[in-house]
Amino acid sequence: MLCKEKHFPVVLVAPSGAGKTTLCKHLLMKTPKIKPSVSVTTRKPRPNEVHGKDYYFISKDTFQEWIEAGKFCEWAEVYDNLYGTPKEKLTGYLNQGSHVLLDLDYQGAKALKREYPNTVSIFILPPSMDELTKRLVKRDKLSTETKKRLNSAKKELAKVKEFDYAIINDDIDKTVEKINAIIIAEECKVGGL
Amino acid sequence: MLCKEKHFPVVLVAPSGAGKTTLCKHLLMKTPKIKPSVSVTTRKPRPNEVHGKDYYFISKDTFQEWIEAGKFCEWAEVYDNLYGTPKEKLTGYLNQGSHVLLDLDYQGAKALKREYPNTVSIFILPPSMDELTKRLVKRDKLSTETKKRLNSAKKELAKVKEFDYAIINDDIDKTVEKINAIIIAEECKVGGL
Repeated sequence: MLCKEKHFPVVLVAPSGAGKTTLCKHLLMKTPKIKPSVSVTTRKPRPNEVHGKDYYFISKDTFQEWIEAGKFCEWAEVYDNLYGTPKEKLTGYLNQGSHVLLDLDYQGAKALKREYPNTVSIFILPPSMDELTKRLVKRDKLSTETKKRLNSAKKELAKVKEFDYAIINDDIDKTVEKINAIIIAEECKVGGL
Repeated sequence: MLCKEKHFPVVLVAPSGAGKTTLCKHLLMKTPKIKPSVSVTTRKPRPNEVHGKDYYFISKDTFQEWIEAGKFCEWAEVYDNLYGTPKEKLTGYLNQGSHVLLDLDYQGAKALKREYPNTVSIFILPPSMDELTKRLVKRDKLSTETKKRLNSAKKELAKVKEFDYAIINDDIDKTVEKINAIIIAEECKVGGL
């Protein structure tokens, strides 16, 4: 009753260079209770891509109809192609007793959390970010180039604080272990004293 | 900077029969980064008890002075004896880079959370509680005795919802694993999307 099985979307967001794609693969291999969310796209399939496994490939007209019918919990346009997460598949997995892993950008994660408030949001940081953020405190002595990179890092970090969790991905096995720990902890969550 | 080492009190609360004492021992053996909080008491030491390891044994007068000086983050009277958690020791461990494990009752946990808002509170439930709570939904057919036990279980459960986490201790190794997962997850926590 109280600690009953709970299932929720787990969304990973990361700036480039954080190693998110490899991380997702490792996580899915090691954690049978978490399933990947398969996105819908209007982009043409690449030779090795399988419909229903890598993506659901649909036409722009169908995608547009799905948007209007409210079938997506989030969608976005990237380089003239549309990508989206269909609610039906996601809810299906959750009801079947799995957590669902989503690999989205910041806006996608925000949209998902609006639709599924029990979404667990995790920001993955590249190891270099840790070094950069350490430098933020003693920035007077730095070059203009480093200051630029710092400003960009600072903006990224402002976003991080909106997430539930943040992990510096300096060791893929440890990061997978941390994500698994987060999932176990969230399953045990009740309220707050 | 962002995911820097964070250290916090971890408080376990449980009704009798939940196996909390054994659980604390196992947890401390398996998790070097968590230290036990040693309580102060006015009770006489038992033959095998060591001052500074099992308890700090002090007089009632000294205990009273400590209360007035605000040296306790929580204290309670149990069968004419006073028991308390001294702030100085707890803060010392946290500053030295350890999490601190506390074994308290419901009131003690609430007092601790007021003093240390980053306290992670975990309610440990006996396996029988799970069975009891399942029966809450179909209580019409039950005996008066079972209904009494259910009412008591219901009151306990109302408290549980004030905690951060709840674990049914049906397997000590799994419970230790879950508490460790909660600690790792809390270390990665940032905000909330």
